[in-house]
Amino acid sequence: MATDRNVHWQFSGSDAAKAASAASLGTYTSKLFALCNPNGKPILPPRGETAETSHTAEKAVVKAVLCGTGNAYAPSIGLPAAKCAVADYLSRDLPTKLSAGDVFMTVGCKQAIELAVDILAKPNANVLLPKPGFPWDVVHSIYQNLEVRNYEFLREKDYEIDLDSVRAVVDENTFAIFIINPHNPNGNTYSGDHLEQIALLARELGIMVVSDEVFRWTVFGSNHFVPMGKFSSIVPVITLGSISKGWTVPGWRTGWVALHDLDGVFKSKNVLDAAKQFLEIDSKPATVIQAAIPTILNDTPKEFFDKRQSFLKDKADFAYSKLKGIPSLTCYMKPEACTFLWTELNLSSFVDIKDDEDFCEKLATEENLVLLPGIAFSLSNWARHSIDMDTPTLEDAFGRLKSFCDRHSILGEAPLKDVNGVN
Amino acid sequence: MATDRNVHWQFSGSDAAKAASAASLGTYTSKLFALCNPNGKPILPPRGETAETSHTAEKAVVKAVLCGTGNAYAPSIGLPAAKCAVADYLSRDLPTKLSAGDVFMTVGCKQAIELAVDILAKPNANVLLPKPGFPWDVVHSIYQNLEVRNYEFLREKDYEIDLDSVRAVVDENTFAIFIINPHNPNGNTYSGDHLEQIALLARELGIMVVSDEVFRWTVFGSNHFVPMGKFSSIVPVITLGSISKGWTVPGWRTGWVALHDLDGVFKSKNVLDAAKQFLEIDSKPATVIQAAIPTILNDTPKEFFDKRQSFLKDKADFAYSKLKGIPSLTCYMKPEACTFLWTELNLSSFVDIKDDEDFCEKLATEENLVLLPGIAFSLSNWARHSIDMDTPTLEDAFGRLKSFCDRHSILGEAPLKDVNGVN
Repeated sequence: MATDRNVHWQFSGSDAAKAASAASLGTYTSKLFALCNPNGKPILPPRGETAETSHTAEKAVVKAVLCGTGNAYAPSIGLPAAKCAVADYLSRDLPTKLSAGDVFMTVGCKQAIELAVDILAKPNANVLLPKPGFPWDVVHSIYQNLEVRNYEFLREKDYEIDLDSVRAVVDENTFAIFIINPHNPNGNTYSGDHLEQIALLARELGIMVVSDEVFRWTVFGSNHFVPMGKFSSIVPVITLGSISKGWTVPGWRTGWVALHDLDGVFKSKNVLDAAKQFLEIDSKPATVIQAAIPTILNDTPKEFFDKRQSFLKDKADFAYSKLKGIPSLTCYMKPEACTFLWTELNLSSFVDIKDDEDFCEKLATEENLVLLPGIAFSLSNWARHSIDMDTPTLEDAFGRLKSFCDRHSILGEAPLKDVNGVN
Repeated sequence: MATDRNVHWQFSGSDAAKAASAASLGTYTSKLFALCNPNGKPILPPRGETAETSHTAEKAVVKAVLCGTGNAYAPSIGLPAAKCAVADYLSRDLPTKLSAGDVFMTVGCKQAIELAVDILAKPNANVLLPKPGFPWDVVHSIYQNLEVRNYEFLREKDYEIDLDSVRAVVDENTFAIFIINPHNPNGNTYSGDHLEQIALLARELGIMVVSDEVFRWTVFGSNHFVPMGKFSSIVPVITLGSISKGWTVPGWRTGWVALHDLDGVFKSKNVLDAAKQFLEIDSKPATVIQAAIPTILNDTPKEFFDKRQSFLKDKADFAYSKLKGIPSLTCYMKPEACTFLWTELNLSSFVDIKDDEDFCEKLATEENLVLLPGIAFSLSNWARHSIDMDTPTLEDAFGRLKSFCDRHSILGEAPLKDVNGVN
C-alpha cells in the first residue's frame, strides 16, 4: 500500500516513565559508556566481565535445567521450595524465625525494592530515602508520584545514619525509612547497636524500616553484617535481597522480599495482601533459577565468600592507597563492604570541571574510564568508582584517573591533605 | 521489647493492584486448585508437569551458564545478541525486515503485553480487547485505569474477528486493537486475508494493531500462521512473543516486543522512547537465558515443532471426540492451535449450576479437575479445558468431566445435538 501521510493516528507514547527512567543508574551508565571511544584504550570498568561465579550456583541451575525441576510456571509469589529455602537461610541469624509464607520471590533485588515502594505508596504519602543511596527506590517513588525526603549520614562516624536528619524530615504522612546495609555507595556496614537505634527511632515515629541487604555477602571490614530483621520485635521490617552480588551472578534476576512482622501488623494493615496483589500482576523470576535456590543457599562453601571478601578487601586497600596521589578527590572512609570507592570531588581544585556529571563525562570521553556521578545517587559532586576488577586493571584505571585529575587541576595548588589516609 | 499496642503505625498496604490482580488468570487458577482435595484422585491437569522441553533450548542455557556468556547485567532493552537473533528470526516471514533496534527483550510474553499497554496508556484513552481473550492486557489496563472496550468473534466463520463489532466501539480516544493470533482461548489461527482486513480497518480507524503471537509454534490446523508484521506497510504493528509455548519452557520468562514501524510513526509519536523508558524502570529477563536465545531460535530442529504439533492435534481430536458424550458443553470449532478446548456451558441443561464459576468450583471440588471459567477470559458461561497431557490422563479428565456433567444435568433431557461434531 502506498504510504498515506494523511492518516491521523490516534496513538502516542506515554510520558509516564520519563522522569523515573531519567533517575535510573542505567541511564547514567549508558550515557557514559556511549561517550567512550570503542577504538581507544580498553574501556574501564570492563563490561560483561565479572568476578568468578559460584560453581555451586552454576551447577544448581544446570541441574534444574536438565532435570526439568524448574520447567513449570511458578506461583506468582514464588516457588514454594525457594521461598522455604530463603526463609530458613535468613532465619539463621534471627531470634524470630521466618516461615515460607513471609517470603516472596522477585526478579532480582530491584523488583524487591520496587515492590516495597509499590505496596506502601499512597497519595500524599512521603518516604525517607538515603542521600546518597542506590537510586532504584527513587526511580519507583518518582513513578508512583511519591514525595521523597532524604536523610543524611555522619561522615565523622563512619557514615552512620544521621538520626537527627531522620527526625527533621518525618511527618504524619511518612510511612517508611529505607536503609541500605551494607551501604551502596558509602561502603560501610551498620553495627547492631546502630540498627537498634534506627529501629527504636522508627518505632517512636510510627514508621516501618525497609532494609536492602543485597550486599550482605561482600563485607570485609571490622563490622560484621547484622540483619535488620533482628530488630523486628521493635519495629516492622521488610528486608530485600538477591543472589546477584553474593554469588556473583549478575543478570540472573532472582531475589526476594521478606516480611518480618510485628504482632501481625503487616496482615492487619493490608501489607501482606498488597504484596500478593502486586506480585500477581507483575513479572516473575525464572522458575529454572528459583528451583536452584535451595542448593545455592545451602551448599555454597564458606570458602567462596571468604575468597571473594579477601579479593575485595585487597582491591579496597589498593584503590584507597592510590587516592593519596589524587588530591582533587577525597574519600572519607576506606570501604569495608560492597564493591566501590565513594569520593567527594574537590571542585575548587579543578580548572574546568563544572560538577560531577561534567567530571564523569569528560573522564569517559578522554580516558575511556567510567565513574558514576554522585547525582545519580542523589548527592552532587561525588563520584562512585568500581573496584571490582583485577589489580593490573585497577592500577590502569587509577593511573588514568590521576592523569585526568592532574590535567584538569590547578597546577601546584594541591592542598596538603588530611584525608585519603594522608595525615 | 515488650509489645506496645499503642504504637500508631503510619503505613498501610496499597489497594492499587487489588482490582487488577483479581482479573488475573493466576487468581482463578490458585482458587480452583485450592478447592481440590490433595488426598483424593490425582489433581488434573497435573501441575508442574509439562511436555518435553526442547533439548536445544536446555543445552543452550546450560552452555550460557557454564561458559558465563550470560553472566553480566544486560542493557535494560535486552542483550544485543538476543535482540538481533529475534529480529532475524521474525524477519524470515516479513517483507519489511526488522533490525535489532526494533526488538526489546522482556520477562516473558506477559511483560511484553504489559509494556504494550503501559507505553500507550493515556488518561481518557480506551483500548480494544478481545472477548474472549487471554486476560493479561485486561489486568494491566485495569491497573492503568484504561477504559477497556471489547470486540467479538464470528462463531460461524471459525472465530474470525467480527469487524463490525470493532467498528461499533471505536471512537476518537481508541488507540489500539489488541489481537491474539493464534487465539487463546478460541484456538483458531487467522488467515492472511483476515489479517489484512484487520490492518485495513485499523488504518481507516487510525488505531494501531498489537498482536500477541506467543502460540505461533503450536498450530496444527489448515490455516498456517501468518505474522501480523506482514501488514506493517498498512498499519503500525507491535508483535509480542516468547519462547515459553513454542519450546515448552514455561517459567523461563524470556520474551520480546517487536515494533514494526510504518514511516517512522513510532519514533515521531514517542512510542519508541516510551518503550525504552518503561524498560529502564522495569524488571529484566535473566541474562543467562537471553544469552541462549540465538541458539534456541536458530538451531532447534523442525522435527521438534512437528512432533509437538502432531501431539497437540492428536489431543485436540481426542478431546473433541469425547465432547460428543457431554451434551451440556458445546464446542463450536475443533481447535487448530494452542493447547485448549473452549466450550460453551449449556446452563439450562444443568440442575444446580449457576454459572461458569460455579461450574468450575464444583468440578474442582468434586472431581479434582480444574477447568478455567469463561469469565476469566471476559466471557461468562464458557470454560477452557487444557488438552496438553498424555492420552490416558486426558481420557481420565474427560471421564470425570462427563461424570460431573451427567450428575448435575437434567436426566434424560439432553438435547439432540448439532454441535461437537454430532449432526
